[in-house]
Amino acid sequence: MISYECKIRVRYGETDQMGFLYHARYIDYYDVARTEMLRITGTSNRELEESGVMLPVLKVESNYRNPAYYDDLLTVKVTLSQLPSVKMKFDYEIYRENGELIHTASVTLAFMNSVTKKACRPPQWFMNILKPYFD
Amino acid sequence: MISYECKIRVRYGETDQMGFLYHARYIDYYDVARTEMLRITGTSNRELEESGVMLPVLKVESNYRNPAYYDDLLTVKVTLSQLPSVKMKFDYEIYRENGELIHTASVTLAFMNSVTKKACRPPQWFMNILKPYFD
Amino acid sequence: MISYECKIRVRYGETDQMGFLYHARYIDYYDVARTEMLRITGTSNRELEESGVMLPVLKVESNYRNPAYYDDLLTVKVTLSQLPSVKMKFDYEIYRENGELIHTASVTLAFMNSVTKKACRPPQWFMNILKPYFD
Amino acid sequence: MISYECKIRVRYGETDQMGFLYHARYIDYYDVARTEMLRITGTSNRELEESGVMLPVLKVESNYRNPAYYDDLLTVKVTLSQLPSVKMKFDYEIYRENGELIHTASVTLAFMNSVTKKACRPPQWFMNILKPYFD
Repeated sequence: MISYECKIRVRYGETDQMGFLYHARYIDYYDVARTEMLRITGTSNRELEESGVMLPVLKVESNYRNPAYYDDLLTVKVTLSQLPSVKMKFDYEIYRENGELIHTASVTLAFMNSVTKKACRPPQWFMNILKPYFD
Repeated sequence: MISYECKIRVRYGETDQMGFLYHARYIDYYDVARTEMLRITGTSNRELEESGVMLPVLKVESNYRNPAYYDDLLTVKVTLSQLPSVKMKFDYEIYRENGELIHTASVTLAFMNSVTKKACRPPQWFMNILKPYFD
Repeated sequence: MISYECKIRVRYGETDQMGFLYHARYIDYYDVARTEMLRITGTSNRELEESGVMLPVLKVESNYRNPAYYDDLLTVKVTLSQLPSVKMKFDYEIYRENGELIHTASVTLAFMNSVTKKACRPPQWFMNILKPYFD
Repeated sequence: MISYECKIRVRYGETDQMGFLYHARYIDYYDVARTEMLRITGTSNRELEESGVMLPVLKVESNYRNPAYYDDLLTVKVTLSQLPSVKMKFDYEIYRENGELIHTASVTLAFMNSVTKKACRPPQWFMNILKPYFD
């Protein structure tokens, strides 16, 4: 299992006229958090793309418990609980600074060959990087 | 049941470096489509807000089958299949111009009193507008 | 001279907690409007890109006179007043439904070869399409 | 004079299909950087808003020299070179990690009373916070 906590501060342009973080922007945050999680393993999403593998999203599930507000410093906790196969699933919990859990989500990605645009298996070098976390 | 088909053209700024409509932007499209659906009933989301009712999102489920591209003129079909109670659930299907179904989703909203910020029942005038569609 | 009026409705996700159309979203609207303007000439930005020419932005100048609000149906008037050379400059005026001018802007683009990523002259076929508007 | 350097990492959802940071997203970055600059003075944009003062944008000027890319860790340098009167002008320089200046900009804001929605002078407490930087 790999777990990572990423701090993201809510931007003014991400609020809506309810005064809340607009609901669609959480989905952007998931992406930021899994980018940072991959970085701590020593590789990166950018490196994956440069090696010819893209990670399009297959599925998103989002549960909104309580709103977030402008300038909140959120903790986005992302967890990869299973070694990826042709898919890679990330689970999310988002906390306010006071520790309150305000949001949960999951995102499933596919591995795609960036030339053929076909689904593919994760590269072996990438699996080698992840495996130690799942022993 | 109320069903509405809304045309949305993919903007350049909504693409990502994969050359796809970025996955989080679909969630913005759902909002546009339900705004247009409400308008055909003779009311509007703006009128709801001006009457003191806001519609925060509780839940989003998105399934990505095939990508959309820059300048695609998508058909976003939104359906309200049940008369709302304290929640209102919209179902979505997104089609490319050639008729291919590329995306499905559902979004559940709450009714919230904009002063107390508490969940509330939908206003009676709003239910009266929707009821004829469910007889 | 080519001039085109494009209708754009303000989306919920484009508002901010002031209750205004967030100032950065106007820049997205400029892009939508020039895309639609090119379309009426019989070509399109997509066709330009497919021919190997990209149009990165060099310069933006935006003047905000009065705010726009959620669900406003704005008229974005875009004008190309000079035949492009290595640059192409668009001027903008944005009007509310009551005819009030709320915003002016200009955007200067470059022509860029999408393979070499170097600045280039506009393709001859593209100039041939534009020329009749400037006679 | 107040100057502040803010690090912002380019998000995947902020790229476009040219593979560049989409030009409109720079304008969001300016906002993030001036929010962080105000924070180091001991106040914040949020505190200003809670005191009844909003800061709508009057003018934006952006100059794009070279593109930024996904995952770039940009340095956004923001400078307030004059004590604000009814307006407040911020100047920006954006640098890549290798020190290359890729973008310059300026943004002019107004002070607005959030109840009357009229232009106003900056609050005295806010001026007292800024003054020491301009002595």
